[in-house]
Amino acid sequence: MPNDALHPVPAGSRRPRVVIVGGGFGGLYCARALRRAPVHVTVLDRRNFHLFQPLLYQVATASLSPGDIASPIRHILRRQRNAEIWLAEAVSVDVNGREVKLRDGRIGYDYLIVSTGVTHAYFGHEEWAQAAPGLKTIEDAVEIRRRFLLAFETAEREADPAARRRLLTFVIVGGGATGVELAGAMVEIARQSLPRDFRAIDPATARIVLLEGGSRLLPTYPEDLSAKAEEQLARLGVEVRTGALVTRIQPDAVYLANEQIPTRNIFWAAGVAASALGATLGAPLDRAGRVIVQPDCSMPDHPEVFVIGDLAHLEQEGELVPGVAPAAMQMGSFVAEMIRRDLRGQPRRRFRYRDKGILATIGRAAAVGQFAGLKFSGYPAWLVWLFVHILYLIGFRNRVLVMIQWAWAYFTRQRGVRLITGYPGETEVELRRPRIVAD
Amino acid sequence: MPNDALHPVPAGSRRPRVVIVGGGFGGLYCARALRRAPVHVTVLDRRNFHLFQPLLYQVATASLSPGDIASPIRHILRRQRNAEIWLAEAVSVDVNGREVKLRDGRIGYDYLIVSTGVTHAYFGHEEWAQAAPGLKTIEDAVEIRRRFLLAFETAEREADPAARRRLLTFVIVGGGATGVELAGAMVEIARQSLPRDFRAIDPATARIVLLEGGSRLLPTYPEDLSAKAEEQLARLGVEVRTGALVTRIQPDAVYLANEQIPTRNIFWAAGVAASALGATLGAPLDRAGRVIVQPDCSMPDHPEVFVIGDLAHLEQEGELVPGVAPAAMQMGSFVAEMIRRDLRGQPRRRFRYRDKGILATIGRAAAVGQFAGLKFSGYPAWLVWLFVHILYLIGFRNRVLVMIQWAWAYFTRQRGVRLITGYPGETEVELRRPRIVAD
Repeated sequence: MPNDALHPVPAGSRRPRVVIVGGGFGGLYCARALRRAPVHVTVLDRRNFHLFQPLLYQVATASLSPGDIASPIRHILRRQRNAEIWLAEAVSVDVNGREVKLRDGRIGYDYLIVSTGVTHAYFGHEEWAQAAPGLKTIEDAVEIRRRFLLAFETAEREADPAARRRLLTFVIVGGGATGVELAGAMVEIARQSLPRDFRAIDPATARIVLLEGGSRLLPTYPEDLSAKAEEQLARLGVEVRTGALVTRIQPDAVYLANEQIPTRNIFWAAGVAASALGATLGAPLDRAGRVIVQPDCSMPDHPEVFVIGDLAHLEQEGELVPGVAPAAMQMGSFVAEMIRRDLRGQPRRRFRYRDKGILATIGRAAAVGQFAGLKFSGYPAWLVWLFVHILYLIGFRNRVLVMIQWAWAYFTRQRGVRLITGYPGETEVELRRPRIVAD
Repeated sequence: MPNDALHPVPAGSRRPRVVIVGGGFGGLYCARALRRAPVHVTVLDRRNFHLFQPLLYQVATASLSPGDIASPIRHILRRQRNAEIWLAEAVSVDVNGREVKLRDGRIGYDYLIVSTGVTHAYFGHEEWAQAAPGLKTIEDAVEIRRRFLLAFETAEREADPAARRRLLTFVIVGGGATGVELAGAMVEIARQSLPRDFRAIDPATARIVLLEGGSRLLPTYPEDLSAKAEEQLARLGVEVRTGALVTRIQPDAVYLANEQIPTRNIFWAAGVAASALGATLGAPLDRAGRVIVQPDCSMPDHPEVFVIGDLAHLEQEGELVPGVAPAAMQMGSFVAEMIRRDLRGQPRRRFRYRDKGILATIGRAAAVGQFAGLKFSGYPAWLVWLFVHILYLIGFRNRVLVMIQWAWAYFTRQRGVRLITGYPGETEVELRRPRIVAD
């Protein structure tokens, strides 16, 4: 076991120690931007890999393997001699003692970057998690894939029509990008990939319902793009329901104000909550638990502590910097630059978010997006989406593997990773808390 | 849930019902060979996919993703209209009632093919399973990968030299093909893939020990090939110990007759035991629990019940037909032919195993094999190994993905699937029973 002593900055190094908690986009871009800075960088993450979140829904829908969208953090940073990586879980921060408490030890810092992101939340209905797994980790994705595929397998052997219908009804709660992407992928698999494989059931009759509590899908998008997305989903066969507030979730049904949808398959894409570490800083938080930061992404009264990425609440011209990958990357590079300026005795600057545009894919050759004020939808938007995601995916190997599997899926209309794993012999969708099953 | 009624042969079909339990090589080749036979085929498997066992060790050693070596059974057989696939676990067989009892139902048959294979065994020391996971399922492979990679991560943060040594010592028990392949792959990763990624430790100093109780590795191979394999492993840096009988296994050490090897990483590649279903047939079993079958692979007094693949004990010219993939494939096709002959009123034949040769890979450009009396080793044997495994891998997509990843690994000396999954936040090699973690 790592000893519990306060890890000192490595012997002989009088360089300031920069501790980065979280190896997502923000943390990784920050570490890289400190490549040539006279500092000692330690990246902490409870996972050994950087996960390309934007494609996680494709793992959940059997298109990609977890290994295709993840890379070991220490391998990404292997050439950066001033950086070390620790597989460790940060439990809390003592901003006065300038120390991070770990699950199994402690580590001191001169500069701290907190980029632990957000997880999914159930609006105070944590009990819903059992029946309606969310999508944030590889384990979540494999659990969703398991339930999705298992429903068809179980239906194939189900004699009772009502029970069969329940098994072939899939409800996605939440009409944001994740919900839209899940619904689009699931309807395609049901309508295009599976039909020939079954005998007793026709997977194409599966009912895919997308529930959004608000008045439109993709609330953060321009209205006309929301309409386009709804239109494209409907064309694919998704039953889109806006203004549909979920009041109750049971293992075999979703309840709306005055309606009940019988289903054995409920997936959660609705709420997010800031990771718990943010609250231990003692800084002001917004309603979602995000840390309200200064214009330079630092914490009030603690210029040596930065909070970046989805965990940061930063307003600019009255607008919140969105919780998207490009914002996290920009913040990561920005705070690295602020640290370098400190060391050079230069004043700090205010962070400026450069909007790279927004993009959501809906399905085969269907997407919506906006770049530089220009709106795209359908095929052109989809091509941009493909290009951008390959571009930001880390690692040559992963890029090649993902491109090949996308091409294969496009031409064969099949999905390549249709594995039900984790529970040998289990032949029914079980409803206990999503268990950890992943690769 | 599937109802508990005895599933009848589908309405309107007066065709004999052939039930195949197990979608491995034997079961799959049997089902395919019945493509045009006037029968109704039902393939039962507790997993929804066919697993290409020969490459499972590459999942355990981070070279391939589970999805690359598995294909959904129902997709493989999608064009075979006389076949249906059930995700179901067979619990026992009532050979007199001609019925298979499932975990959740029953199914009657006119012909039954049992091809459920073998699992790993601990020679009556089942308690060893916790400290020394074996390699038979995807879950096993991901668990081995998790422990292997986690050991280096934990060592990187371990201050105590003795504890660090223990973490960087890997012991593989069993010098058969699986043990040889695991040891060869692990030493390559430690020596070639990981070194640049770590700061506090030098992964190249990891100690990889391969223990074989017998007098030589690959006992079923010609002696000179065993010697070659040992020589090639030693050159790679594996510590090969023959005549090394394991007397005790503890979470932190392996015990031999008069020696103890301190290690936190023990992997089991020693014994196999027949799957439990075989014993429920009431047929004579051999010491390993295999079913002793007639020359036509049928069970004594029950010509309508066949046992094939690793689960079958069949002697030919005083030699046991080996438990290898080619034998299972041949038996599968053979029993399908016997069923067709029955239906045509023709007499049965005796199964003849055609030896396709033997092959074991040791590492980069190293392998041993024998075909048609010719012995190969080193580079030529390795090339044959590559070719044969790509050839028998099912699915165009999988072939392409595996070839690309092999090429990438060959040229970069890296491993592409270095994911520690299943236990977010776990930062130490835990020693409870290998939990289910898979993709």
